[in-house]
Amino acid sequence: MISPMVKRLEVCLTPALLDLYDIEDSIVVVIDILRATSSIVYGIDNGATAIIPVAQVEDCLLYADKGFLLAAERNGEVVAGYDFGNSPFSYTAEKVAGKTVVLTTTNGTKALHLAQQRAHKVVIGSFLNLDSLYNWLKMQNRSVLLLCAGWKDNFNLEDTLFAGAVVSALRKEFHHFDDSSVAAEDLYHLAKSDLRAYINKSSHSHRLAALNIEEDVKFCLQYNICTAIPVLVGEQLVALQA
Amino acid sequence: MISPMVKRLEVCLTPALLDLYDIEDSIVVVIDILRATSSIVYGIDNGATAIIPVAQVEDCLLYADKGFLLAAERNGEVVAGYDFGNSPFSYTAEKVAGKTVVLTTTNGTKALHLAQQRAHKVVIGSFLNLDSLYNWLKMQNRSVLLLCAGWKDNFNLEDTLFAGAVVSALRKEFHHFDDSSVAAEDLYHLAKSDLRAYINKSSHSHRLAALNIEEDVKFCLQYNICTAIPVLVGEQLVALQA
Repeated sequence: MISPMVKRLEVCLTPALLDLYDIEDSIVVVIDILRATSSIVYGIDNGATAIIPVAQVEDCLLYADKGFLLAAERNGEVVAGYDFGNSPFSYTAEKVAGKTVVLTTTNGTKALHLAQQRAHKVVIGSFLNLDSLYNWLKMQNRSVLLLCAGWKDNFNLEDTLFAGAVVSALRKEFHHFDDSSVAAEDLYHLAKSDLRAYINKSSHSHRLAALNIEEDVKFCLQYNICTAIPVLVGEQLVALQA
Repeated sequence: MISPMVKRLEVCLTPALLDLYDIEDSIVVVIDILRATSSIVYGIDNGATAIIPVAQVEDCLLYADKGFLLAAERNGEVVAGYDFGNSPFSYTAEKVAGKTVVLTTTNGTKALHLAQQRAHKVVIGSFLNLDSLYNWLKMQNRSVLLLCAGWKDNFNLEDTLFAGAVVSALRKEFHHFDDSSVAAEDLYHLAKSDLRAYINKSSHSHRLAALNIEEDVKFCLQYNICTAIPVLVGEQLVALQA
């Protein structure tokens, strides 16, 4: 048993395994690279006032008369009648600055809500804000759990690779790592010279290819084009104030 | 959705994720390298008549008056009063030939029982019988799920590495792989030149080191010293008849 005083850096490979982690005093970083957390980071960075993640498409309707933008997606496609879905290109300053967006996604929202029930703090990670996230995490004197949203409760490559990128960046700041953080870091080192090619090995990538979102995928794999770190406050994701 | 007619090769990283897999027509290979499935392979290879996996130490007692050998282990240690635990060195021909062993283990037994409830067939894998297992699997016209027993329902490195070794050997025979089989195979290729050193990166390995079973670990990482493939028939693991 590890003393709760030991600062841990761990990777939870899917929300289905979250109960196995002691996160009451931890910062949880939720990761859903293709595409929810990439779009959330981009939207907050572009001045969205808040992004409200909801679990079901129907939950979006509760916000319909509040002047919010409604974004709904199921199985990678925009739901008919909504303003937009998860494509990061919908989250430009032009579209979202000063607005609140209500977002429902298949995997990311579930991970966010599960984490929020128990964690000290829940923030959002993506390749787009990796350096900013890393610099903030290393200043906190807290255990960190990197929570991969995965695909339908199972492991996926792209979320694991990003978790590995964070482990690689934070390695010197921590002494205790779990087996999945070791694996994620090694997979990241294998993949980092060409993330796009590596993710092509993934079954999820084949699903996304069928949806014709290649430009979205390329966008989500860019490093450090944003500095914002979205943090969950109540039901809203807002920009973390440094 | 993949047609059930497509032959799949998949890796379930922990028993907690088994419900996500369709295994009704599949062969499930249960993997608990340190040390349950290594000891089971070695024991059956050495002529044990059968090995009966049970979930709880108390369940062993139901077999106490049947002349069986009783093996019980919790958290890596032999339970007081039992014949032996999970060390492969307890499963020599001298000790087990012609005998039935009742075995309880922390992780392996749970995986076996969960798989048996739904799978077409359940067999046992370890580095000790890798070639034999591979040669048999490639002759079957079935989807294969490699089920890592893991550590307390979570991911571990050594089971994943073995799953990756099987994926690597069987790659040409299959066309559909899930993300975890891609990751497992790549981790295996990273680790294969020195499995022992790689597993040292694992938190589980540190726990085992504290139990002073370094010789067991080395033993379990040997390739192909056995040819037997244990198969679950009713409640008993017995040698598969080719």
